[in-house]
Amino acid sequence: MASNFTYYTPTEVVFGKDTEREAGRLVKGHGGTKVLLHYGSNSAKKTGLLDRVAASLKAEGIDYVELGGVVPNPRLSKVHEGIKLGKKEGVDFILAVGGGSVIDSAKAIAYGLYNGGEVWDFYEGKRTLQGALPHAAIVTIAAAGSEMSNSSVITNEDGWLKRGLNTEYGRCRFAIMNPELLYTLPEYQTMSGIVDIMLHTMERYFIIEEPMSLTDDIAAALLKNVMHHAHILLKDPKNYEARANIMWAGSLSHNGLTGAGNGSRGDWACHQIEHELGGLYDIAHGAGLSAVWDSWARYVYKIKPERFASFGYKVFDLPKSGDADADALSAIAATKAFFESIKMPTTIKALGVNPTEEEILDMADKCSFGGTRTPGSIKALDRADIEAIYRLALGD
Amino acid sequence: MASNFTYYTPTEVVFGKDTEREAGRLVKGHGGTKVLLHYGSNSAKKTGLLDRVAASLKAEGIDYVELGGVVPNPRLSKVHEGIKLGKKEGVDFILAVGGGSVIDSAKAIAYGLYNGGEVWDFYEGKRTLQGALPHAAIVTIAAAGSEMSNSSVITNEDGWLKRGLNTEYGRCRFAIMNPELLYTLPEYQTMSGIVDIMLHTMERYFIIEEPMSLTDDIAAALLKNVMHHAHILLKDPKNYEARANIMWAGSLSHNGLTGAGNGSRGDWACHQIEHELGGLYDIAHGAGLSAVWDSWARYVYKIKPERFASFGYKVFDLPKSGDADADALSAIAATKAFFESIKMPTTIKALGVNPTEEEILDMADKCSFGGTRTPGSIKALDRADIEAIYRLALGD
Repeated sequence: MASNFTYYTPTEVVFGKDTEREAGRLVKGHGGTKVLLHYGSNSAKKTGLLDRVAASLKAEGIDYVELGGVVPNPRLSKVHEGIKLGKKEGVDFILAVGGGSVIDSAKAIAYGLYNGGEVWDFYEGKRTLQGALPHAAIVTIAAAGSEMSNSSVITNEDGWLKRGLNTEYGRCRFAIMNPELLYTLPEYQTMSGIVDIMLHTMERYFIIEEPMSLTDDIAAALLKNVMHHAHILLKDPKNYEARANIMWAGSLSHNGLTGAGNGSRGDWACHQIEHELGGLYDIAHGAGLSAVWDSWARYVYKIKPERFASFGYKVFDLPKSGDADADALSAIAATKAFFESIKMPTTIKALGVNPTEEEILDMADKCSFGGTRTPGSIKALDRADIEAIYRLALGD
Repeated sequence: MASNFTYYTPTEVVFGKDTEREAGRLVKGHGGTKVLLHYGSNSAKKTGLLDRVAASLKAEGIDYVELGGVVPNPRLSKVHEGIKLGKKEGVDFILAVGGGSVIDSAKAIAYGLYNGGEVWDFYEGKRTLQGALPHAAIVTIAAAGSEMSNSSVITNEDGWLKRGLNTEYGRCRFAIMNPELLYTLPEYQTMSGIVDIMLHTMERYFIIEEPMSLTDDIAAALLKNVMHHAHILLKDPKNYEARANIMWAGSLSHNGLTGAGNGSRGDWACHQIEHELGGLYDIAHGAGLSAVWDSWARYVYKIKPERFASFGYKVFDLPKSGDADADALSAIAATKAFFESIKMPTTIKALGVNPTEEEILDMADKCSFGGTRTPGSIKALDRADIEAIYRLALGD
């Protein structure tokens, strides 16, 4: 039965060509007067994007300071740097120019500036947020969906702990999305982003509860659309329609739409399993997800084979054989084949990393919070299950 | 090409069983201290719904006054009554308990109380809104989607003018949606609501611009889901899944999702044509839409037959014949057949009304604002076109 749900997406999306020129108007409309302009690598500088954003802010009389250098799997040390700078300069608005890492870092800075104290406490669940400084995003990578989601993920270099925090205070005031800003993304990063987008919908699909059928139908429509356009981008990375559809799908995949009525929480075991890999190695998040998904799916599908089978019917138009187990395995194989078709790894070794025995045990321990938590909805995974999935996924 | 768009849906949706008991908590969270509880017929009283809502408000220490009596095609006189009462009682929050008519009436009262002066001016475009009193909805009819839309439609009895107003100030702070509240709706009202829901998506589908394919795919998924569940409700009006899916589709159909990237405005000619019928006769809005849709479609499809044909392929799984005109007519026939299958009228006379020659001319005149406006995107309709569609739709 469709479960009760809350759907709350207050972010004002401004989508399309040249929309970065609206930044000043939007910051002003949302009450910002002094902005921390937060970004990652120098590419935002080199392409002139930061200049265009800065000009838009200046045109509205909005002051700003810059802080670049956010890396994938964004670090707590950079968040601390942002909080220190924001305090010193008296900023009242954080504007992220980048992908999920930059947006997540901006959210953490917004939490730190509003609440004071050690911001990592919130990610460890030791304190509860009372609010956040207003923040917004100009999106340059279609992947994390952080621009419309309530989540952020930060890595603490002290122990390489990667932790996520979901809170309504994490909603961006606005999100500017110009598909043309994605034209220069390398193929590997584009495809990794596509896996991330797909997984945000798939993690909400593979649930032990009964789903809501409209949500299933929207999820299938979204996944088919994304896969179609992924293949176009392999040949034509500057295809506006393909970039636009995938970019919008990225936001819809993680704003709650594809999970409405589907139980209380989704599965998210793959994300948890990948988080530990991403904490240990600097891998692209989406590539990490495709590296473990197939092994996770094969490990858990027998708990609810009809759910995996339905995924094959709806998303891959696979025929019904009458054998749910066989159809589930066909759906898993079709998903793996799609990941391979966009050149994404489907084992951990294909990521170019090779965890030691000790590292596997350590990741399984962290992923289960020392054996105290069991990620997953289709199957709640204990430490031994997680360890088994890491081993299956190695690709020996 | 996917057009630039803004997507802004700040309404907090709280969906599912017993959610009306959250009313007090939500009003309080959104800053309300004294509420105008606005409703329609006595059924909200008889079923005990108003009592449960009132109890929820009292439990949070929130004071309230009541104003019932909103009728379908809500009247300006009732809006004036609400503004007068709201002023006298010093209310700071309007809570609608009902369907689109009650919610639209509540929005108009919220505009009047915030801005002062004659509220009809805003519907006539003579003044611009500066804001609105906070307002929210407890939805008891799945149809108008007003709970998440930016629009409201009011009828001025002086001349029976029906006018819509779209503004971001019209967004509800929250929307409580309990599918069980719909169990007792009469079949005709349920099916009329379903037509309205479908048309909100279809008006955004039939555009002269190139669409965004993800939006098309989501629209088709939504329409197929709604049609499937409509047939279930014909046999089993207390089917929770069917009520829940249609109710959620009603909100998604009119919150902008099904038009994202599809040009600047959608078509909306059928809505305009129906509005004049609804201003003249007290007909159910959805029934009025199904009464004119087929004639509108046959009048305009040759401008862009491939768009109507694609509707048939995506929504009705019709085969491609290679002849766009023939496929367009098949799609139109399939849509008409669906409306008939849920017992909805597909001519004006089937609505039980019979406009005179003078009334047809008068409706065409009003619909074109005296010949100064041309509703429609697929085809911009002038006064003569509108007159022709009314005549086609009569059903002689």
